[in-house]
Amino acid sequence: MNKPLLTLALFPFLAFAAPAPAQNEVRQVERLRDAALEDDVALDIVEGLTTEIGPRLAGTEAEARARTWAVAKLKALGFRNVHIEEYRAPTWVRGSESAEIVGPFPQKLAVTALGHSGATPPQGITAEVVAFDSVDALKAASEAKIRGKIVFIDHAMRPTQDGSSYSYFGPVRRSAPSLAASKGAAAVVIRSLGTDYHRNPHTGLTNWSEGVAPIPCAALSIPDAENLRRMLERGKPVTMRLLLTPRFIGEQISGNVVAEVPGSDPQAGILLIGGHLDSWDLGTGAIDDAAGIAITAAAAKRIMEAGRPRRTIRVVWFGSEEVGAFGADAYRAAHKDEKVVFVSESDYGTGRVWRMNPSVAAADKPIVDRIAALLAPLGISLGTGQAKAGADLGDWAKAGVAAIDLQQDALLYFDVHHTPDDTFDKVDPAQLRQNIAAWTAMLAVLANAREEIGRAPARP
Amino acid sequence: MNKPLLTLALFPFLAFAAPAPAQNEVRQVERLRDAALEDDVALDIVEGLTTEIGPRLAGTEAEARARTWAVAKLKALGFRNVHIEEYRAPTWVRGSESAEIVGPFPQKLAVTALGHSGATPPQGITAEVVAFDSVDALKAASEAKIRGKIVFIDHAMRPTQDGSSYSYFGPVRRSAPSLAASKGAAAVVIRSLGTDYHRNPHTGLTNWSEGVAPIPCAALSIPDAENLRRMLERGKPVTMRLLLTPRFIGEQISGNVVAEVPGSDPQAGILLIGGHLDSWDLGTGAIDDAAGIAITAAAAKRIMEAGRPRRTIRVVWFGSEEVGAFGADAYRAAHKDEKVVFVSESDYGTGRVWRMNPSVAAADKPIVDRIAALLAPLGISLGTGQAKAGADLGDWAKAGVAAIDLQQDALLYFDVHHTPDDTFDKVDPAQLRQNIAAWTAMLAVLANAREEIGRAPARP
Repeated sequence: MNKPLLTLALFPFLAFAAPAPAQNEVRQVERLRDAALEDDVALDIVEGLTTEIGPRLAGTEAEARARTWAVAKLKALGFRNVHIEEYRAPTWVRGSESAEIVGPFPQKLAVTALGHSGATPPQGITAEVVAFDSVDALKAASEAKIRGKIVFIDHAMRPTQDGSSYSYFGPVRRSAPSLAASKGAAAVVIRSLGTDYHRNPHTGLTNWSEGVAPIPCAALSIPDAENLRRMLERGKPVTMRLLLTPRFIGEQISGNVVAEVPGSDPQAGILLIGGHLDSWDLGTGAIDDAAGIAITAAAAKRIMEAGRPRRTIRVVWFGSEEVGAFGADAYRAAHKDEKVVFVSESDYGTGRVWRMNPSVAAADKPIVDRIAALLAPLGISLGTGQAKAGADLGDWAKAGVAAIDLQQDALLYFDVHHTPDDTFDKVDPAQLRQNIAAWTAMLAVLANAREEIGRAPARP
Repeated sequence: MNKPLLTLALFPFLAFAAPAPAQNEVRQVERLRDAALEDDVALDIVEGLTTEIGPRLAGTEAEARARTWAVAKLKALGFRNVHIEEYRAPTWVRGSESAEIVGPFPQKLAVTALGHSGATPPQGITAEVVAFDSVDALKAASEAKIRGKIVFIDHAMRPTQDGSSYSYFGPVRRSAPSLAASKGAAAVVIRSLGTDYHRNPHTGLTNWSEGVAPIPCAALSIPDAENLRRMLERGKPVTMRLLLTPRFIGEQISGNVVAEVPGSDPQAGILLIGGHLDSWDLGTGAIDDAAGIAITAAAAKRIMEAGRPRRTIRVVWFGSEEVGAFGADAYRAAHKDEKVVFVSESDYGTGRVWRMNPSVAAADKPIVDRIAALLAPLGISLGTGQAKAGADLGDWAKAGVAAIDLQQDALLYFDVHHTPDDTFDKVDPAQLRQNIAAWTAMLAVLANAREEIGRAPARP
């Protein structure tokens, strides 16, 4: 493939000659990458969104205000084709919430409803607590043991650099409440699916199996879960009062915010990147996921300012990710026939990128190698795993679109994720900028590669 | 003074020959000290009190349950003369509390009422926020600027090893709300007097000047205070809604819990030590001050088990410290004529002891030197400051009773102090044990010193 002479003339420093770009072209990307280590755009986005909007639960007017804010910000940053794509999504809102041990050791507990929790009566539920150390223990238990009780599910999630413990222990939050409901539990409390030791319980979505009616279910902060465990270890029946009054308010308008860096070659395909604009309602959604939308937009803006790239970079700030990725579904339904050749998502806060995992066609290995060489000086290794592309873009990757995961260090992420503590002060500016540098280098190579970007191997 | 032969015979290893105890006697104290580094008693006390009682606000039934618990625990540990000394104290209880920015950037803020705050109407107060960077700035402001407003007082407290920044910035919480009230403020919110970055605001007592009626006043968590500051920096008027419904419920019964290690020589005077049993209501009072009562009791128990000391060690777990040291006042009023020759208090969590500050008679320097030699291997230096003896025993020290402060590292203390985060998991067992070792060595020397313990120089 030859690059058209016109593009070469206009943007010589980004015009790679495949397979080995000229040394001066590599130097140009290195300079772009290193300049990104001084980026202020991303921090400004996170500061602005958390200060001027704050929490933005999917389907609520706060998420709508965030979309308006996002359109103004992306236009001000110089992006093209900035617009909102609306859809409707089932919406759940938090109510009052409290928990206390009635006996034998009366005291209040720090608690928060899981997303899509059912509600207690207005006066709450008072029942004996029955504890399980794992989802497997709950599965093995008889209905007689569970019926009418408040089921407490404990676990031992610890931080992992790749964040895999969140998946490993995930069923405690995602599916165990439904299982307990199917066995007649009055309510469920779990040890927060998190790793910190603050009185800030972690919310997050729980899923109800077909035919199971939602029951009240909530997360205890980890200090409270450990306190409850110590109470139970004393061997006397422990009685809890739980009050949760969340509500499902039906389908509401949600939306994705889209912005583009137009490419010069419509045939070369689109790079589809982004994160999610919605957040849980407890914090201000700084690391989840203002950071991700800021990183991807800041990197795309740097490519834009370096000159028109060959490929269009489309940045999408998805709605409704936290509550079931409804924005991702709507977006894919509307755009699946477009020539999207690459997807990548940022949704792991501001932990530094430590590894890239590509899922690309064998023929595209030279592109990956060029990116890997540019990321190595940032302390990023080339992994052997498969790219997942996150909750919003994962379906594209599964369908065979090339993807690269820039994996972020997750050791601290689940200290803050889905808690009231997800606030601007948790952003590490230096690590945020390392992310932008990695994204900038990756996008510079992909946006201007002369090669076609092919389909990745089929994956499960 | 000669030590009676009987005591020498019964407890030879603790009988010091002034001024230079025999080397084998020093070795005995070293062994006591080092054995304390394996102590389990103090951790058990903190675990039990935080699990079985939890928060124990002064004057409430929770504090009464804590007293009952304490008596049972101290008796079980083998102390003598264990009893409660009741008194009455004005009592304040928390109600509902919430805060939100109404405009221009609507979002909820994490807030908690300061102790002795007034209440808002049931629907809350909605008013414009007027901000001050310091108490001095508030002092300088005109009534016209403040009247009817919600006054926000910011500050820059940072951690200090000696905890002095808590005193330096203390007027923000202790006196500024009263000052704002006297200038017609509708309510006051302060940046929490603390050093962490969690959504857990720090409560603590505020004081109302003579003739000033309490107004609603609360602390914002530090992330929220910084968010509010960012909003204000944007230059538009910021309106807040604040709801606080605490109540004064009049005088209630509170009490001190007393326990003794009886000494062999009633003429030698009493060593009066302890901490406070009450806690703020937000956390479970693990570091403030279950740790202190546990450290002092565990050390005293070690002296008791080593054989009857010369001097009585009296351990007092004071009530109502947090809300005005009413327990300390009642105790001193009732006991001020007793021969108390030494006081020392533990009320700084589980930070390791890094310095001892003695206030003793010049003639008692040899005793201090013996203690200093025994503490040096624990990494404790001999300071040149004056002992304060804490909120519960400070009046004794001021009146000339000899005192030693075992100063604890406070760099992390104000991350947790007076917050919901003051829970059992915050206890550092190794540092807790270093405290017990220091206290054990200090008490072993003081309880058995052949010298009389004299009056310290007068102090302000």
